[in-house]
Amino acid sequence: MKLLLLSMGLALVCGLQPECSRSEEDLSDEKERKWEQLSRHWHTVVLASSDRSLIEEEGPFRNFIQNITVESGNLNGFFLTRKNGQCIPLYLTAFKTEEARQFKLNYYGTNDVYYESSKPNEYAKFIFYNYHDGKVNVVANLFGRTPNLSNEIKKRFEEDFMNRGFRRENILDVSEVDHC
Amino acid sequence: MKLLLLSMGLALVCGLQPECSRSEEDLSDEKERKWEQLSRHWHTVVLASSDRSLIEEEGPFRNFIQNITVESGNLNGFFLTRKNGQCIPLYLTAFKTEEARQFKLNYYGTNDVYYESSKPNEYAKFIFYNYHDGKVNVVANLFGRTPNLSNEIKKRFEEDFMNRGFRRENILDVSEVDHC
Repeated sequence: MKLLLLSMGLALVCGLQPECSRSEEDLSDEKERKWEQLSRHWHTVVLASSDRSLIEEEGPFRNFIQNITVESGNLNGFFLTRKNGQCIPLYLTAFKTEEARQFKLNYYGTNDVYYESSKPNEYAKFIFYNYHDGKVNVVANLFGRTPNLSNEIKKRFEEDFMNRGFRRENILDVSEVDHC
Repeated sequence: MKLLLLSMGLALVCGLQPECSRSEEDLSDEKERKWEQLSRHWHTVVLASSDRSLIEEEGPFRNFIQNITVESGNLNGFFLTRKNGQCIPLYLTAFKTEEARQFKLNYYGTNDVYYESSKPNEYAKFIFYNYHDGKVNVVANLFGRTPNLSNEIKKRFEEDFMNRGFRRENILDVSEVDHC
């Protein structure tokens, strides 16, 4: 009788509580699905860096995202970039870490990459802390699902960056420039 | 009858499922309680920085944690530090952000602070990305519940830092030096 009540209770309660009775594995799948939200096409809309030369013409972080695929929790980014006047593809894999939203990337030295977005169907913000030759620089990337984003989103991104003590000239709106 | 079954079911099921029937507010409380794990006494065991002068004698990040209190999700740190040969108290508040494990701190410019620990009863790692005069530096702090920590924990912390391309001399084991 106790078991019957429990089963009936579970059936009723789980109707109200979607989290109910999920296993660890289910939750891990769910985490994976969360990163899946980052998949598909993207556009680089704004770039900002503590070192402007990193995001200027032919700079190592002036890369234009095309799409992201998620594989075992790692993020594969396909970018276009310009080197010696040529447009070339660039594939970067940001590896997952023990911490959610934090990834490791080996590119131009190494990078700690943090992801932030409250609306992954609209925009995504990736902060790269780049370590190169003993120096640290920050590169902030604002990606949009569309080639441009609302002034509200861009302004928030820019203010957030400038609140760290950087000048406006360290921010480049690349929504209307040639992406390669 | 349905309500009765539901209540009985809830009572039974909630005995098995601790997450069951918690409101948003409860979960927010739980998050708060999670940070509560960071409360109480701490000791600075190892300091590391991309700029060694920041953690050397009288450097702005050579601060020795005494304890942390958590207030509305913000972290109040009480440190001892040496200025002009005097040992003085230093109170720093790291304000919560929308992202878990990430805090904002206004000190020596501004800082993005990230917290990492799998064993908050043993150690805690705080990474400060410091923005000062347009420059970025990283300062990594290893705090212990005890004045010293196992070689295993210290080694992992040190390797993790050196994997970012920094030299061993940028890491200072301060477990046995005068903390003020």
